[in-house]
Amino acid sequence: MTVERGATDRRARRRAESSAAVQQMPWGAWINPLPPLELLDGESLDRIEATAFRVLEELGLEFMSPEAVSILERNGAKVVDRTTGLVCLGRDVVKAFVAKSPHLFTLHSRNPDRNLTIGGNRINVHTVGGAPNISDLDRGRRPGTFADQIELMKLQQGLNCVHFAGGTQVEAQDLPVPTRHLDMHRAQVTLTDKVFGARGIGRDRVKDAIAIAAIVRGVSREQLLTEPSTYTITNTNSPRRVDKELIGGLMELAENGQAVCVTPFTLAGAMAPITLAGALAQQHAEALAVIAFAQMVRPGTPVVYGGFTSNVDMRTGAPLFGTPEYVRTTLIGGQLARRYGLPYRASNVNASNAVDAQATYESAMSIWACVMSHTNMMHHGTGWLEGGLVASLEKVIIDAEMLQTMKAWMSPLDVSDDALAFDAIKAIAPGGHFFGADHTMSRFENAFHRPLLAEGRNFESWTEAGSIDATRRANGVWKRMIEHYQQPPLDPAKLEEVDAYIARRREEIATSGLA
Amino acid sequence: MTVERGATDRRARRRAESSAAVQQMPWGAWINPLPPLELLDGESLDRIEATAFRVLEELGLEFMSPEAVSILERNGAKVVDRTTGLVCLGRDVVKAFVAKSPHLFTLHSRNPDRNLTIGGNRINVHTVGGAPNISDLDRGRRPGTFADQIELMKLQQGLNCVHFAGGTQVEAQDLPVPTRHLDMHRAQVTLTDKVFGARGIGRDRVKDAIAIAAIVRGVSREQLLTEPSTYTITNTNSPRRVDKELIGGLMELAENGQAVCVTPFTLAGAMAPITLAGALAQQHAEALAVIAFAQMVRPGTPVVYGGFTSNVDMRTGAPLFGTPEYVRTTLIGGQLARRYGLPYRASNVNASNAVDAQATYESAMSIWACVMSHTNMMHHGTGWLEGGLVASLEKVIIDAEMLQTMKAWMSPLDVSDDALAFDAIKAIAPGGHFFGADHTMSRFENAFHRPLLAEGRNFESWTEAGSIDATRRANGVWKRMIEHYQQPPLDPAKLEEVDAYIARRREEIATSGLA
Repeated sequence: MTVERGATDRRARRRAESSAAVQQMPWGAWINPLPPLELLDGESLDRIEATAFRVLEELGLEFMSPEAVSILERNGAKVVDRTTGLVCLGRDVVKAFVAKSPHLFTLHSRNPDRNLTIGGNRINVHTVGGAPNISDLDRGRRPGTFADQIELMKLQQGLNCVHFAGGTQVEAQDLPVPTRHLDMHRAQVTLTDKVFGARGIGRDRVKDAIAIAAIVRGVSREQLLTEPSTYTITNTNSPRRVDKELIGGLMELAENGQAVCVTPFTLAGAMAPITLAGALAQQHAEALAVIAFAQMVRPGTPVVYGGFTSNVDMRTGAPLFGTPEYVRTTLIGGQLARRYGLPYRASNVNASNAVDAQATYESAMSIWACVMSHTNMMHHGTGWLEGGLVASLEKVIIDAEMLQTMKAWMSPLDVSDDALAFDAIKAIAPGGHFFGADHTMSRFENAFHRPLLAEGRNFESWTEAGSIDATRRANGVWKRMIEHYQQPPLDPAKLEEVDAYIARRREEIATSGLA
Repeated sequence: MTVERGATDRRARRRAESSAAVQQMPWGAWINPLPPLELLDGESLDRIEATAFRVLEELGLEFMSPEAVSILERNGAKVVDRTTGLVCLGRDVVKAFVAKSPHLFTLHSRNPDRNLTIGGNRINVHTVGGAPNISDLDRGRRPGTFADQIELMKLQQGLNCVHFAGGTQVEAQDLPVPTRHLDMHRAQVTLTDKVFGARGIGRDRVKDAIAIAAIVRGVSREQLLTEPSTYTITNTNSPRRVDKELIGGLMELAENGQAVCVTPFTLAGAMAPITLAGALAQQHAEALAVIAFAQMVRPGTPVVYGGFTSNVDMRTGAPLFGTPEYVRTTLIGGQLARRYGLPYRASNVNASNAVDAQATYESAMSIWACVMSHTNMMHHGTGWLEGGLVASLEKVIIDAEMLQTMKAWMSPLDVSDDALAFDAIKAIAPGGHFFGADHTMSRFENAFHRPLLAEGRNFESWTEAGSIDATRRANGVWKRMIEHYQQPPLDPAKLEEVDAYIARRREEIATSGLA
């Protein structure tokens, strides 16, 4: 019996090892031990902020929802034009309401081990979001489908350096728009156990996300009020406008205690002034105004200050990312968010048309800027390509490699006597080598970070093996990960409840004539 | 006449514009405005340093030169073994001599506009160095030749983000070893006007570099003593050994007031302990001992503390770069150098076999680590590939793109009223756009950094143009740069003197039977 059990254990271990197709870091929080990089001095920040307040006080923002306008008015905003929804906000009102935002909050998942702390010195990596197209080396670039959405969910669920399950990573263009979010949520709660995003367009879609979050977590709506379990990324319609559907989604989230990441879409030269200081002033005005509004809807609403200011290619109008401009606005955005103790969102972004050196260095610049700016929510952390028009499966792996590297070098360094290795140095004669030393041999398996992708073999053996470059190796990695994908368990009773909810909603939507 | 002159001017201007084949940043110093990133606390640094001193006091270093050993002995070192040259150095002796190093010095070029300040908050980018092979997309990977050396010199001379002319960027394997350095120096002083490196192997080669530097600068040997005009990168033969030829080169440089960058070759797990703290302790011991020795040879010798500790692939023994380990040792190396106010050298390195995503992200990690560690001399800044076995022409351009990006985001941000753009924001209605605004139109030509390589055009037009990825575009860029290379003028009398010197040296070397 003992012998057999031993053999079974070995077989089980071997099975587990072969199913762990890709060696990666374990799941866990990413703590940023670094001081944030303060690129701008206080006086310059004051000037940007003063301009932002002048924008809000003298020019105003359009809230394209009478409901929102009346809430703003009740809380001290001045309505300039009731037809358009243009309101001006005094800095005192803005500051008083922004101050109601929590500095730190927890996003809850159906698996408590996947709960995320947002704020402070935590970095949480979010998947790519909102890409209309999908791309990989085998099938090329094509409009996204539900099958692609599922593939991305499986891949990102398997990657331990990705903290969020994400929202719409890629559009499921083959599904009808009115019920597309229901399919997405069912996939999210069955294929992943990480915190998932809602679709923030209109109250109804957000209602569905909240209802499904409550079901899979098995908690009441009251409990959800203090335990946010879903969120949206809410872009303003820059310059100085927030449309009705986004306001609806935001209000639904805020009323129910869920989280909102407010991100002005301030591309310098397009939706904002071409000068970075001006674009940042506009970003700051829009972000603070919408965050203040969320606090008017419900004080204490968990919010994230989103920075997304970048520049555009002035010949084509196309957005550019990972540029020097993007690095600066990301760093300064963090400084502006910290003025209010707000959790900060920035992104891992690039504008390349291929998963090539450009995609990689633009992303590397973005990731470093995120980390040095104390970004708490790194949006588009894995898989974004082509200025957001494409979610790339190979790029997911390249990004994961970079993110793992970043997290690894921040881990504490062992400076014990054993690590200082005086005796090991003593044991090796001048001009000798440490390869066979006991100190080396007893540590070599785990001494160094294991990359997902990088290769150390020499040119000759790399050539013999087919000269496979990193992007093509990434193709192999995502396939192995999806092949070895493991579905997280979900209580069948909860799944049944989710399915019943979705079926009822499908019927309601069909009846309403929207489908 | 006036009309004709105007037409000539226009033609000249047009010619100048077309010869400016590649748009790039102007030549200039790179000032690092950031605080250095202090990864390790003081106590941990103390522990590393204490171990380094124990290594020097209890184990010692081999200086494989009786001349060096007697200098060390005269200055307080304890000779343990006169045959091998093993000497022990007390921490007080080491500290006293290291303290004689300048914190800041100027490297002089024959063109004073190319002089370089080494130390403080300056970042100086060095070319790739020491690669046996050369590679480009057209001709593949092959052993380096003198023609390749010349191509690299022309390319790097043209790049304004590269501060040094470099030394042996790639080996001229088609030239005889004893006189190879003479051909290199003639090329350096005719094809470039930037500070050039000597070949630090033995006294005679260094003598030649110094003699040629004096000729092209038109200064006496006395003036050269206080105006260093060449340098070497001196690697120790880790662990704990410096060979005779390197010591000879170093002594010749020090005696003549030229600069030495002392860089222990401490790959963790190979030539140093597998634990990073131990490898850093060994690096620190070797660097401080050799720097102290240089100050014994001549107090005030301009020196640079070189960090090169990285890890190896424990399956193959191959060095790895741009890893989490490399980022940590680069950052901590800067902290160790700053303890003595020494200028610091680290490198832009990677281990990839192709100019692909791996080469790019490993280099990006290295460059950021260099910048955040306050590296003063970024070795291998442009063109290094395959762990140093290859100099890649395409990689030169990819690296230059990343370096330009880094320098650009550190430039001061304009927060003038004009840049804050309140009036521009006021002029655009909510939901409008800034493309046609006066504020935009009057600035769009120079508002943003111009990349060397990155493209902003959309996928469709990129595909129509042949789907050229960044590495292949880099191939076009280096060709255009070499095609439009402009030779810096050199006084014909000086050239004649250089040629006479080289002819005499060739004869001496031939007579000595070395050739």
